[in-house]
Amino acid sequence: MAWRLSAGQLLRIVDVEGSQSGDLFAVAADDLDDGQSNGRTFDMGGTIRLSTRSLLYSRRSRPLLRIVEDEVGVHDMLYAPCSQEMFELEYGVTEPHPNCFDNLANSLASFGVPSTTVTIAFNFFMNVVIGPDGRLEIRPPTSRAGQGMTFAAERDVLVAVTSCAAPGANAGGARPIRVDVGDWQGSRTS
Amino acid sequence: MAWRLSAGQLLRIVDVEGSQSGDLFAVAADDLDDGQSNGRTFDMGGTIRLSTRSLLYSRRSRPLLRIVEDEVGVHDMLYAPCSQEMFELEYGVTEPHPNCFDNLANSLASFGVPSTTVTIAFNFFMNVVIGPDGRLEIRPPTSRAGQGMTFAAERDVLVAVTSCAAPGANAGGARPIRVDVGDWQGSRTS
Repeated sequence: MAWRLSAGQLLRIVDVEGSQSGDLFAVAADDLDDGQSNGRTFDMGGTIRLSTRSLLYSRRSRPLLRIVEDEVGVHDMLYAPCSQEMFELEYGVTEPHPNCFDNLANSLASFGVPSTTVTIAFNFFMNVVIGPDGRLEIRPPTSRAGQGMTFAAERDVLVAVTSCAAPGANAGGARPIRVDVGDWQGSRTS
Repeated sequence: MAWRLSAGQLLRIVDVEGSQSGDLFAVAADDLDDGQSNGRTFDMGGTIRLSTRSLLYSRRSRPLLRIVEDEVGVHDMLYAPCSQEMFELEYGVTEPHPNCFDNLANSLASFGVPSTTVTIAFNFFMNVVIGPDGRLEIRPPTSRAGQGMTFAAERDVLVAVTSCAAPGANAGGARPIRVDVGDWQGSRTS
């Protein structure tokens, strides 16, 4: 699903049952080509590890979302969202399979966002370990039931969130992610 | 500059004077929205360190280029290409400044590629060290004068290459990069 957030509004993601990851993608409401960028986010923040106080930047180097609470602390922004092609190439799937890319792109399309804007995602709760030689290993999420994280909109944005259906990234399963959107008091930590 | 390469054709990049990095971006010739993706490349290759035999993948998980020779071995695909906004935010520049994003996007525009396709780049010879906490440190390129690397087209592609004008990534300067494009014998190692 996707929502429009005004600057300052909050979006909270909760891992309902535990060990479940998902994908989030934000776009500036005033430029539907100006979507979230991992390369700009890594450059501006000087790190690939994002947690409380980190900003997610757009392609045009504009802040879209700020992480204001993070009870999990282990996320990924290296991997592209899982896609139909990924399920075909890596899991041998031949039928249409639910996937993060289509979920993000289809829900944002209802706001007029072109699917080409969705190039990467913020993979919340996804646990990726980088070896000293650069090799990537996907481990089960460390998130426990009820844990979550909260984002604040740095400007007016459209945000899509999906739970991930790739068994390899979710301890073998696919479970629900709860999303709360709106304004509430007392939850901002920065 | 940008070129059209037919499947199998080679593109060789040489650091003429040494300690100079640059950016490369490839797009599938049959789908000008299907550009190079760091997230797909990391996923399909299982690593963030790319060298001989590595494939650069598109957003649709299609191989675009293969690295067939690499005399340097130190490259980056985490950082977005430097841009006018980056020079303004990180270097305090207020006038228009040469930058990799505009160079890549403008040269590909002559082939009809929309600038929105250029979201990231392969930053050849760019030397980025990742700390144990995920922090990124840009060091001078390890490339010496005359060293280079060669790519082979895995399908018909459009490829843009630029030398990088950001002092921080190039040992304080901005020097030329030589590019050879075409067919030649004896240089393929895989």
